[in-house]
Amino acid sequence: MAYINLEEGLYGIRGPMAFRPETAKPINELAEILLRNDNTLSRGERELIATYVSYLNDCFFCQNAHGALAQHYMQCDVQFLDSIKLDFNAMDISDKLKSLLAIAGSVQKGGKYVTPEQITHARELGATDKEIHDTVLIAALFCMCNRYVDGLNTPANPDRQYYINRGKMRAEEGYIDFDLYK
Amino acid sequence: MAYINLEEGLYGIRGPMAFRPETAKPINELAEILLRNDNTLSRGERELIATYVSYLNDCFFCQNAHGALAQHYMQCDVQFLDSIKLDFNAMDISDKLKSLLAIAGSVQKGGKYVTPEQITHARELGATDKEIHDTVLIAALFCMCNRYVDGLNTPANPDRQYYINRGKMRAEEGYIDFDLYK
Repeated sequence: MAYINLEEGLYGIRGPMAFRPETAKPINELAEILLRNDNTLSRGERELIATYVSYLNDCFFCQNAHGALAQHYMQCDVQFLDSIKLDFNAMDISDKLKSLLAIAGSVQKGGKYVTPEQITHARELGATDKEIHDTVLIAALFCMCNRYVDGLNTPANPDRQYYINRGKMRAEEGYIDFDLYK
Repeated sequence: MAYINLEEGLYGIRGPMAFRPETAKPINELAEILLRNDNTLSRGERELIATYVSYLNDCFFCQNAHGALAQHYMQCDVQFLDSIKLDFNAMDISDKLKSLLAIAGSVQKGGKYVTPEQITHARELGATDKEIHDTVLIAALFCMCNRYVDGLNTPANPDRQYYINRGKMRAEEGYIDFDLYK
């Protein structure tokens, strides 16, 4: 049971967002800009960064909700995603994306864990300033969202398939003006 | 030197905010709502929570910029603030605020570190659902901002007095439409 009195039947971040719509608005706007707006990083790549950080923070709701979106955009299966979480370097994704996931992993531990070598490496693989900026901010945003979700002990549907089934709909609805109750 | 090409002379979060104004807008809106809008927690109490989390994350810029605001609102000196960082339980602040700082300290480690006992304790001392919600979200927000500031290795003015001198002005300007270059 959540630590505060949240509306029944809303999983994860949706409960506190319904509780305090005023703060939900800028959080969703930030997610929309970072994860969906035009970007040289694909939506799949950005949702993967979000998923990986949420996995490192052990946030069940976020890693499955955003994992389903990454899976939808990347047209991969959940085993592929799970393998990326465990060892992205062994997987068939671009070297640039691997270098950005490494930066995101450092941000998850704390800002100061990001090293100049990680940045140089990402740059050598073609990452732009904006891509590095957005990777750091996406990782930081999920360090916020994961804490928001778990710090209030919000309930999550334990069935991973539930999130996968909703991936396409979630990709269509986006982060602004979505129906909290859908 | 920052990891990406940021405008010279902008300290801390101001550099990346000038680099990407689109994402700065919702971050500042969230800060305005949580730290300044009407609330049963005073502005000083909320800036203190932000400062304490930034201290735990070892973010020099945020703990001094927001520390100066806490100091301004609470009309205390920097020694008092520094003592709160080291051992808030020993200080002359309300028991309710102590219980909220304890929750914020857990959120800094990760959402799952918040315990039912911490919530019950805060509630027994009069904390409302909204105050608990806002404490968790302020702490989570600063876990994002601290990582954003340090993950991009932004420069900070090393002189703590610089921030203290700006406390009053920062309190007047707020988080929306402030002049990045002032």
